[in-house]
Amino acid sequence: MEVSGDKNKPHQVVIVGGGFGGLYTAKHLAKANVNVTLIDKRNFHLFQPLLYQVATGTLSPGDISSPLRAVFSKSKNTQVLLGEVSDIDPKAQKVMMGDQVIPYDTLVVATGANHSYFGKDDWKDVAPGLKTVEDAIEMRRRIFGAFEAAEKETDPEKRRAWLTFVLVGGGPTGVELAGAIAELAYKTLKEDFRNIDTSETRILLLQGGDRILPHIAPELSEVAAQSLRKLGAVIHTNTRVTNIENDTVTFKQGGEVKEITTKTILWAAGVKASAMGQILAERTDVECDHAGRVIVEPNLTVRDYKNIFVVGDLANFSHQAMKPLPGVAPVAKQQGEYVAKLIQKRLKGHTLPQFHYNDVGSLAMIGQNLAVVDLGFIKLQGFLAWAFWLLVHIYFLIEFDTKLLVVFQWAWNYITRNRRSRLITGREAFVEPKPVSSGSH
Amino acid sequence: MEVSGDKNKPHQVVIVGGGFGGLYTAKHLAKANVNVTLIDKRNFHLFQPLLYQVATGTLSPGDISSPLRAVFSKSKNTQVLLGEVSDIDPKAQKVMMGDQVIPYDTLVVATGANHSYFGKDDWKDVAPGLKTVEDAIEMRRRIFGAFEAAEKETDPEKRRAWLTFVLVGGGPTGVELAGAIAELAYKTLKEDFRNIDTSETRILLLQGGDRILPHIAPELSEVAAQSLRKLGAVIHTNTRVTNIENDTVTFKQGGEVKEITTKTILWAAGVKASAMGQILAERTDVECDHAGRVIVEPNLTVRDYKNIFVVGDLANFSHQAMKPLPGVAPVAKQQGEYVAKLIQKRLKGHTLPQFHYNDVGSLAMIGQNLAVVDLGFIKLQGFLAWAFWLLVHIYFLIEFDTKLLVVFQWAWNYITRNRRSRLITGREAFVEPKPVSSGSH
Repeated sequence: MEVSGDKNKPHQVVIVGGGFGGLYTAKHLAKANVNVTLIDKRNFHLFQPLLYQVATGTLSPGDISSPLRAVFSKSKNTQVLLGEVSDIDPKAQKVMMGDQVIPYDTLVVATGANHSYFGKDDWKDVAPGLKTVEDAIEMRRRIFGAFEAAEKETDPEKRRAWLTFVLVGGGPTGVELAGAIAELAYKTLKEDFRNIDTSETRILLLQGGDRILPHIAPELSEVAAQSLRKLGAVIHTNTRVTNIENDTVTFKQGGEVKEITTKTILWAAGVKASAMGQILAERTDVECDHAGRVIVEPNLTVRDYKNIFVVGDLANFSHQAMKPLPGVAPVAKQQGEYVAKLIQKRLKGHTLPQFHYNDVGSLAMIGQNLAVVDLGFIKLQGFLAWAFWLLVHIYFLIEFDTKLLVVFQWAWNYITRNRRSRLITGREAFVEPKPVSSGSH
Repeated sequence: MEVSGDKNKPHQVVIVGGGFGGLYTAKHLAKANVNVTLIDKRNFHLFQPLLYQVATGTLSPGDISSPLRAVFSKSKNTQVLLGEVSDIDPKAQKVMMGDQVIPYDTLVVATGANHSYFGKDDWKDVAPGLKTVEDAIEMRRRIFGAFEAAEKETDPEKRRAWLTFVLVGGGPTGVELAGAIAELAYKTLKEDFRNIDTSETRILLLQGGDRILPHIAPELSEVAAQSLRKLGAVIHTNTRVTNIENDTVTFKQGGEVKEITTKTILWAAGVKASAMGQILAERTDVECDHAGRVIVEPNLTVRDYKNIFVVGDLANFSHQAMKPLPGVAPVAKQQGEYVAKLIQKRLKGHTLPQFHYNDVGSLAMIGQNLAVVDLGFIKLQGFLAWAFWLLVHIYFLIEFDTKLLVVFQWAWNYITRNRRSRLITGREAFVEPKPVSSGSH
């Protein structure tokens, strides 16, 4: 047995982070003979794969969130703690939340990752990312606010800038945002304005690599690109943003330097580990990769600390292929399940073979009847892929919570292109969205 | 014909405010031979009677909002303008939005009212009201944040303060909030915490007058008070808040001065007209009442200006009874319909008899199977009133928008007491809600 404690006291598992990794670890420990403490900064789990639909007005934040306390209401061995872990002491087996000290027998760190601005952190304000509910509300404010500003604008050049959307990053989030904005501009909002023609909207997707959706098969990447182009978006591959200033994005495509004037830049690129990665590195001497993710052992532990696990986006697990597993929900989910199982095995003096990710495939939604699904053995596109995408998400949402009616409502809104949740909120008296940048910096 | 314009140009109606009054004016002009410009600060209409359910976690803001542009998408004579009216010029028949000047033939002002802090405007931060989506999100943050803080608190006195909720104002909003918080504390959240017993929660409703819900029949008031007490709330009538300081609310009940320590004070009292009331008074010399509401003529116009109407909460219409009509949705709705009709009559050289409010009754929800309905000819209470309340709101939500599935979802959540929308949002890293007051002021 690799971890143990006082025989009279149940084994104490502390999980930091209530995303997919932490949530599934806790869920699979709900009936184990352990005490579980789940710590999160927020009081809800967020179904992040659908966050882009909050940003584009199809869903409300409440539709894709589950209160953590409600999820574990019936699991009497599980305690939810709201707060931010400030430090850990791996020798003393303690987690610190400011003054509060929480002892553990086993620690599971699942605090995820953020976008990376590649060293240009001041771009964050002008080009917001999409990781939190607040991010999504802010994106929604900017997207719908841009159409409103365009409607009011009399100068044709400025109007053009308001009707130009630049998306940085060609992964699932960037692609799904581009598709959703295209549907908004070219379909949903078409009849809503009197001074502008929303079909004049320009949507640019800038991708660093040589194809969008690099995690799926190249032929599906191509299908996705064609679908996006058909919807009206413009894709630039092999493209790197070099400057953002005075409403102008400068980017390098190959050797060529290009510029575009826009009022709305949305960021969906890069990976940067959350702060817990740094804390773990300092306290355990574990190695991190260039993005700050913790390089984990084959059983997801931290080197030299068999009772500290890292799961989900914060973990760099490279034992299965040459490169780390992608930062997607199924990986985090399976890792959480694995860790929960291993903890229970260990309590009985057993162990488990190393973690193995069972690839469930990749999928991305582009728009109505347009999606790509790569299951390895089968590749889908068009309506079939779209229907599959919808079914998979309905399945996960139901598994995850019994929000049956929400799911139907969502599917209904999605199918009928109803964007009822397009409130511009967060500032008392909305008049005009903040321009992308008001000066040089 | 009392108003006219260039025979070649359609009559120009400018409506300020997209609440019930403005919205129904515009809706009933959608097929008229007029041009309508609807101005609002926000891009959505808010179904305010259900806002307290956003504040208490049953609904998401998107569930009770309709994008104004979507509502008027098909009404090609109607233009939605986003912005804030800064001034009007009744002689030149112009409305100003900063630099922008919008001419009108007929002006309809429907900018509503806010809560009044009876001169103590610095209480606003410690005792937020409930008028906007942001207000509701902030209230939700405070309510659910208080339970979280109590769960963490080890000092019994402080914990007691976190579990004490003081509601100021015994009108529908105060009563409905008190009922919803009681259901949260004593039912929904009962199993969710590990350190606190949420049934120890204290809920105080402070009412200035001698009974809660003064707009309904006294016997129903009494039923509502009994229902609230049965749920666990404490009601103090004839009570006036005299001070809020250091987490302590001081109030006078009769001659007696009492104090209660609390971390959460919610404000649902008083009426204060929106800023347009002041602007109208200055520009047209119209008389306003003590709350700043415009005292309107029997046909809802402003004295000396037959082409300026005031409808809804901003209007003081006292021609039907001895006192002004209540500030409720049905009044605003009927006034909007009346004005739309009168404008069309006038265009044909006709007029209408004075406005008459057709009282559709009053109702208030207290909790599961607990409501009061006063239709004048019939008075309902208990389950019947509750079912009636639900039906009426479903009817209005459907009439108002075809969100059938939302309505079912909402009814379902409501019946099953599911509080899925209890996200604490709005601050990046939630740790602890701001205490009511941190010092004297």
